[in-house]
Amino acid sequence: MKLLLTYFLIILFLLTSCNKKPPLKESEAVQTSENEFKYSKIIDLTHEFSEETVYWVTAKKFKLDTVFNGHTDKGFFYSAYNFSTAEHGGTHIDAPIHFSENSETVDQIPLKNLIGQAIKIDVSKKAISNPDYQISVEDLTNWETEQQMQIPNGSIVLLQTGFSNFYPNPIKYLGTDQRGEDAVKLLHFPGLSPEASEWLVKNRNIHAIGIDTASIDYGQSQHFGSHVNLMSQNISAFENLTNLNELPNTGFYIVALPMKIKGGSGAPLRIVALLN
Amino acid sequence: MKLLLTYFLIILFLLTSCNKKPPLKESEAVQTSENEFKYSKIIDLTHEFSEETVYWVTAKKFKLDTVFNGHTDKGFFYSAYNFSTAEHGGTHIDAPIHFSENSETVDQIPLKNLIGQAIKIDVSKKAISNPDYQISVEDLTNWETEQQMQIPNGSIVLLQTGFSNFYPNPIKYLGTDQRGEDAVKLLHFPGLSPEASEWLVKNRNIHAIGIDTASIDYGQSQHFGSHVNLMSQNISAFENLTNLNELPNTGFYIVALPMKIKGGSGAPLRIVALLN
Repeated sequence: MKLLLTYFLIILFLLTSCNKKPPLKESEAVQTSENEFKYSKIIDLTHEFSEETVYWVTAKKFKLDTVFNGHTDKGFFYSAYNFSTAEHGGTHIDAPIHFSENSETVDQIPLKNLIGQAIKIDVSKKAISNPDYQISVEDLTNWETEQQMQIPNGSIVLLQTGFSNFYPNPIKYLGTDQRGEDAVKLLHFPGLSPEASEWLVKNRNIHAIGIDTASIDYGQSQHFGSHVNLMSQNISAFENLTNLNELPNTGFYIVALPMKIKGGSGAPLRIVALLN
Repeated sequence: MKLLLTYFLIILFLLTSCNKKPPLKESEAVQTSENEFKYSKIIDLTHEFSEETVYWVTAKKFKLDTVFNGHTDKGFFYSAYNFSTAEHGGTHIDAPIHFSENSETVDQIPLKNLIGQAIKIDVSKKAISNPDYQISVEDLTNWETEQQMQIPNGSIVLLQTGFSNFYPNPIKYLGTDQRGEDAVKLLHFPGLSPEASEWLVKNRNIHAIGIDTASIDYGQSQHFGSHVNLMSQNISAFENLTNLNELPNTGFYIVALPMKIKGGSGAPLRIVALLN
């Protein structure tokens, strides 16, 4: 009977220990989830730069000039171009200094804020038919309820309004095909409300934000409250993104690499998503 | 006794099943090595763009013009700039069409060729004191012998000459501080020999190549044989890289994202390495 009891205790011990895994250390857990990319698909979220590229109505547009394009007298083919552009046009980054005097210039943004796990918040059902739509605090909390998770610490947040479907048609995408100072009041496209950006900054810890419209503030904004709220906290904004419809709501990674302009307030951005 | 035997068998079963893990499928194993990034460190291999940025002696240099920098009458701070540049200056990509008429423009380069596992071949001991050094077939095969592996299929190959130490001093880095057509014959910096690029193209399968000098061909090149050899096979070249000394020889990943210029022969490049 004593032997039986011993066996019984051994079995009990084995049964309990067998299902036990060594507890994951906090630091390892963070590293695995944040610094590990496993992907089977790369999606380009970038519009190309050309004469059609959409710029702010007051900004200098992209221009490509041919230096040489043809066969040289030494027998080889050669092509090369010069270009000029505003920092803020097409798919680009707003560095924090764009709207915040003592914040980071584009070359100073830490790479860890531009590479990492991302989420998508799709408000296109509300925004696609309302060019003055402002993404609300409720849109953010509704996403969290639906996904049964908070917007993760250190994540890159992408906002899908559906407006990239209209790109590069300026009337549909910006609200106007006029250009110059007088056209600013004619801008109509969705953005993130100042209240929602304030909520994000105060209640969540995000590394960057992106949107598929020309600006993180909506077209009719006068004081660019979301720019100011985000950028005073060194949170950069990616603007004029595309292909957000191809992304899931969670479980993907972003690599967003801007041109490294010393002291720049922004720059052309190449941004890709890595999907499982 | 029968009961004892039963207990004994149960214990044996538990002991064996406890240490069994499901076998890894072949397809999963492949995916893990090629499309999984696990990193603890990000290294920027990019020089910044400024007035000091090194350009080819005949190329238009980088110029940043202030649009606005200060407080607006609406109370918020705002800064924005325009810029102009040649495609081929500073840390940039040569798209295959740069030296091959029917090859890819910069916007056409598949992203899978710009993101992935990489290796470094360090020839700085030979090259740093010889600005006319050309990396040879032997340098490549010596690397393979030392590393006991072939240059992996689909890898990005980075060539370290050590010349980024001289950047942006034009006399040390390019061989001359003169500019214009007459300065071309004064260029002295290391590169990849046409024989070595031919060997790479014929015997190995690489996705892209990079170097820490102003060109993949050495300064004294007349016919740019390595450009032609590589680019006719749609292999892009990353030029004017930096910080290659911080990379190991193997076991790291590259993400190289150029500005997406439609029809461009090259573009400013932001390139980072992800290290374990």
